[in-house]
Amino acid sequence: MTTESLKLYQSGGSPNSRRVRIFIAEKNLTIPTVAVDLGKGEQHAEAYRAINPRRVVPTLVLGDGTSIGEVPAIQRYLEDAFPQHPLFGTNAKEKALITMWERRVELEGFASVMEAIRNVLPGLQGRAIAGPHDYEQIPALVERSKQRVANFYSDLEARLSEVSFVAGDRYSVADITALVTVDFATKAIDMPLPEGHVATKRWYAEVSGRASAGA
Amino acid sequence: MTTESLKLYQSGGSPNSRRVRIFIAEKNLTIPTVAVDLGKGEQHAEAYRAINPRRVVPTLVLGDGTSIGEVPAIQRYLEDAFPQHPLFGTNAKEKALITMWERRVELEGFASVMEAIRNVLPGLQGRAIAGPHDYEQIPALVERSKQRVANFYSDLEARLSEVSFVAGDRYSVADITALVTVDFATKAIDMPLPEGHVATKRWYAEVSGRASAGA
Repeated sequence: MTTESLKLYQSGGSPNSRRVRIFIAEKNLTIPTVAVDLGKGEQHAEAYRAINPRRVVPTLVLGDGTSIGEVPAIQRYLEDAFPQHPLFGTNAKEKALITMWERRVELEGFASVMEAIRNVLPGLQGRAIAGPHDYEQIPALVERSKQRVANFYSDLEARLSEVSFVAGDRYSVADITALVTVDFATKAIDMPLPEGHVATKRWYAEVSGRASAGA
Repeated sequence: MTTESLKLYQSGGSPNSRRVRIFIAEKNLTIPTVAVDLGKGEQHAEAYRAINPRRVVPTLVLGDGTSIGEVPAIQRYLEDAFPQHPLFGTNAKEKALITMWERRVELEGFASVMEAIRNVLPGLQGRAIAGPHDYEQIPALVERSKQRVANFYSDLEARLSEVSFVAGDRYSVADITALVTVDFATKAIDMPLPEGHVATKRWYAEVSGRASAGA
């Protein structure tokens, strides 16, 4: 199994694409990429819909033409196919705990930032949820989502006051999701890490200082 | 590794608990359970919060006291620890595709039903999102969530017109999430499968006819 037969369809500005790019960099892999221009609506064009009917990036296409969508599915495929530098843990218990923490970060942090931005941007009117179906924005969701991000930050600070990394004593895929969430919240909804969150800032300096963070 | 050292904290009426119960039944395992009475608010009591600070069911507690929360994390732990009757696939590609399909069903179907019910029930005022934090209900979400469930049903019908099971030609964890979603939508928000969805009804008859569906 080599990486040359793979293709990652992705977008430079997409936080979901960045979750996969950092994952690939941490595993020291080189995978050819194909840019999907979201600004031009290329995700809705027939060519991309044939690859991913949900019309979202990223998608990993295998050498035999199989398309794998959804960030955790792509990450798990890469972990199985290229076991070096494991990011999901190495035994059943560790894997379960990393899966649990990554999911909490995604549902409480990442998804909340996404919900806030999609329900407020004028350019996303009628497109409040990514995918093939159109949904109207709900303005009341914006404030509730921001409240969720604030609570996520508090919970993360409590967690990182007790352990070095999100899932425990080692860097994992849960740190990737958390890092992308913080950067996304800072940029998209002007919610940087709060001043007093010293444990999270210590963690942030460490994970954002890794070479993979530039991916 | 035996199952006697495990404990599943769960609730009979909780659809997330049912996802794990069906998974356990399909793997032919017997795991001792502990009932958490959600009606009495036992999930908010100190004893349960020590096990799962997110205050949601189910949680799997291992023999060494480790708590594993989040349905997919529990399911993956059980799959790793007890590989018989695999429900997540048997090679990297199959595993990735099952992960992808299960996640789409969860995000588009299951989560939409949950969002609809939590934003409308009088008893859940101030508790629109499960977990340790309180959030007000947003009435506008109820209709949008129901629209999402309707779209999920259409997409599922298209998918099951092409393949036997949600993730392809074999029963998998994606079918468990889809079955629980349909039953949950029928019961909680009065959205049974639409009349003309013959492919989905063929699939539903098959998966709900398995012994595990009674779990």
